[in-house]
Amino acid sequence: MSLTVRLHITNTLFHLNLKAPLTKRSDNTKFLHSSVYHPNPLSPLVFHQRMSSVPLCKHSVTIKSSLIDPDGGSLVDLVVPESKRELKASEAELLPQLKLAKIDLEWVHVISEGWASPLKGFMREDEYLQSLHFNSLRMKDGSVVNMSLPIVLAIDDEDKERIRVSTDVALVGPDGDIVAILRSIEIYKHNKEERIARTWGTTAPGLPYVEEVITPAGNWLIGGDLEVLKPIKYKDGLDQYRLSPQQLRKEFDRRQADAVFAFQLRNPVHNGHALLMNDTRRRLLEMGYKNPILLLHPLGGFTKADDVPLDVRMEQHSKVLEDGVLDPATTIVAIFPSPMHYAGPTEVQWHAKARINAGANFYIVGRDPAGMGHPTEKRDLYDPDHGKKVLSMAPGLEKLNILPFRVAAYDTVEQKMAFFDPSRAKDFLFISGTKMRAYARSGEYPPDGFMCPGGWDVLVKHYESVQAEEEATQKPTAVSA
Amino acid sequence: MSLTVRLHITNTLFHLNLKAPLTKRSDNTKFLHSSVYHPNPLSPLVFHQRMSSVPLCKHSVTIKSSLIDPDGGSLVDLVVPESKRELKASEAELLPQLKLAKIDLEWVHVISEGWASPLKGFMREDEYLQSLHFNSLRMKDGSVVNMSLPIVLAIDDEDKERIRVSTDVALVGPDGDIVAILRSIEIYKHNKEERIARTWGTTAPGLPYVEEVITPAGNWLIGGDLEVLKPIKYKDGLDQYRLSPQQLRKEFDRRQADAVFAFQLRNPVHNGHALLMNDTRRRLLEMGYKNPILLLHPLGGFTKADDVPLDVRMEQHSKVLEDGVLDPATTIVAIFPSPMHYAGPTEVQWHAKARINAGANFYIVGRDPAGMGHPTEKRDLYDPDHGKKVLSMAPGLEKLNILPFRVAAYDTVEQKMAFFDPSRAKDFLFISGTKMRAYARSGEYPPDGFMCPGGWDVLVKHYESVQAEEEATQKPTAVSA
Repeated sequence: MSLTVRLHITNTLFHLNLKAPLTKRSDNTKFLHSSVYHPNPLSPLVFHQRMSSVPLCKHSVTIKSSLIDPDGGSLVDLVVPESKRELKASEAELLPQLKLAKIDLEWVHVISEGWASPLKGFMREDEYLQSLHFNSLRMKDGSVVNMSLPIVLAIDDEDKERIRVSTDVALVGPDGDIVAILRSIEIYKHNKEERIARTWGTTAPGLPYVEEVITPAGNWLIGGDLEVLKPIKYKDGLDQYRLSPQQLRKEFDRRQADAVFAFQLRNPVHNGHALLMNDTRRRLLEMGYKNPILLLHPLGGFTKADDVPLDVRMEQHSKVLEDGVLDPATTIVAIFPSPMHYAGPTEVQWHAKARINAGANFYIVGRDPAGMGHPTEKRDLYDPDHGKKVLSMAPGLEKLNILPFRVAAYDTVEQKMAFFDPSRAKDFLFISGTKMRAYARSGEYPPDGFMCPGGWDVLVKHYESVQAEEEATQKPTAVSA
Repeated sequence: MSLTVRLHITNTLFHLNLKAPLTKRSDNTKFLHSSVYHPNPLSPLVFHQRMSSVPLCKHSVTIKSSLIDPDGGSLVDLVVPESKRELKASEAELLPQLKLAKIDLEWVHVISEGWASPLKGFMREDEYLQSLHFNSLRMKDGSVVNMSLPIVLAIDDEDKERIRVSTDVALVGPDGDIVAILRSIEIYKHNKEERIARTWGTTAPGLPYVEEVITPAGNWLIGGDLEVLKPIKYKDGLDQYRLSPQQLRKEFDRRQADAVFAFQLRNPVHNGHALLMNDTRRRLLEMGYKNPILLLHPLGGFTKADDVPLDVRMEQHSKVLEDGVLDPATTIVAIFPSPMHYAGPTEVQWHAKARINAGANFYIVGRDPAGMGHPTEKRDLYDPDHGKKVLSMAPGLEKLNILPFRVAAYDTVEQKMAFFDPSRAKDFLFISGTKMRAYARSGEYPPDGFMCPGGWDVLVKHYESVQAEEEATQKPTAVSA
């Protein structure tokens, strides 16, 4: 089913630099695209922009209202059917065992539900090398899917020795249960330095995922095909929010969504985010979609120590819906189970690609996605604009509609969060995550209209308990001193 | 024109691991491919390999005997026609000027002759980012060309200030002549750390190209479209070897080549290389080609201090042809003007891609192409097998036939260079470049049959003169001591 609409995009509404012509991709989907990404009047890419964007800006076009196909054509599902579980479980008992860390298990979860479709297990070397060098995988039919992060499992020399000649291994979760079988395994060298350099564009010490996962890991990677014995659950009271791509697609169909726009975040939702999400919905309606659904999709895997914990964020998000800042009727809140790399332009491709598999055909991208401060220098690790530029050019993401968003900030005149207006820059107050945490830690209230009170109270409570803990843990030291 | 032949490849002849099924690519060209690249029985790539290689190994197939198309469809030529030179030269006089280092000029040369087709100048940011993240560029029609090395020009703050609002700049060669105009320029940040990490997979100090070119360079990159005022010449007595892709294609046509196999090297040719090249020709004849031509293509740009200088290598190569080790009738010796990055799997793609543009449809790749020792650790910087694996999977190189070669070593029984036979490994003596240089420095002769005497004498003479120089430069120090 498709519908025809006249496009009348106000370019200013999607990008700070006030240029975002709607550009057609080869497969008849569209993405909002700033021409500054391709300033070269003679470059191949710009010819593409020019030729293809002109008709779109001038005439009516057809917008595909069906949801987007998963990468590889079908959604990967690696959970063993109930009927076979017992058999597989007893088989697994006899295999060499590999102990998984918490984050390894998060990846098993991610792969098993098809977020990384068409990936069917931890990467073997051919997939690893393509991911590292090309951020993509070539399929048997010559088509290309995006795959920007190496999704790998590391083992050490002892593990390798223990596996010996076995072609399959059992994966054991942190709690001691066998969670999966890894089939027709391949073991290859884990060159940590090269992996880190090519994934993060730096080898500086202090990258959270590197210190947590890679540095302590073994010097071998083991790839293979996953069979997961039963759905991965965390029993942390949040499992009901962990909807699989399959469940999300079903829900979008149930709600008869004709557009799904995904918003990835790992921070509390303030009114600037809300403004942006509501504005995006309005734009999609203007574009002719009848029932755009927002997928508010907080990342639920590993995050760095100073990020707000998942349970607190989820509570804060529900307050935001309770307080009516976002409309529950057109919003789905779910958890994206991936761990966080903080790898900027490389990682934002993964965030977008996984949402294709979850059925989102629009992806909102902002300033410095998946970025952080440089671990050893006084600067952002990544150019804040590279994320959306790389996303707009990434192989395998052509079918996804990219929505670069304008920066929202606190308008001290209107006393509310509003899209930043460069013509009166001095009126705007930028409240960074750090600044927001500082407010909450000090129990101080941010300017009115920055965040709904219900949501804010959740944060304040969180930081009170953190401070209480800190004091508690400091006492013994005080005594012993 | 095309011809049909029965394929009967002895797999052992192209790869050390004794497996190299002839694999068909989507565009009906073929490449010799080791199945160990894609050991994953379920991975997209392997399906590709499997499905496509089976019929080829069993039945007759058609081999395209026409030469390969340049990337982007037509060969880029940025040298201003004679008639317009004067006009452009006087225009250039009025533009802000940028001074080029020797290696910058080598890149101007490379770009101007179309080795990097479809690139029409130094990269703007959109091309730079695609090269850095995807090793490829997407064309206007959605097709992809390989572009693994950032081909960029760095400027410092003073240059940037001097350019001000000018849209074009003049490029001045090391000798003070204006050599080119860079049109509709774009200036963007030069994040050296990220560039180095993503290109080399390490940021360790001691990478030759980094120390020579990147570390001393400015913090900005300037992209634009090149107009080169006249063909770049070096007046070093070797210009006659510097055939452009256009000249090479003409020469291949003149010789009515139905296959051209390129051999990239930056070292003297020993009999192991010769064995390999002659054996490749024999194989191509067996495959049904009537007139395969060898492009012996030494790299002529920047190389590290301890590599054998270009003039010496060229002299050595001509001796090899004089001594009849290679057949002049079926060999073209020319200089590839690119500087050397020593960036292993990333750079080997550039070496192959440039040869596509020069009209070669077969590319020979060996162990650890464009590799070197790790600058700070006691190991190879790259896995010696990654180069050919990455090459076989690289976007935009599908149309090139990749010929992974078996390692040749000195067979102490047969007393000649021969393909390494793992079944009698102890009979083989590996003579590395370092070892060869050690022989030559000490004036000692390598084992009979390692290199033709004429070629060897060239090297010995070279190292004698090097030693003489070293002693000469050491004397003053001795006196002053």
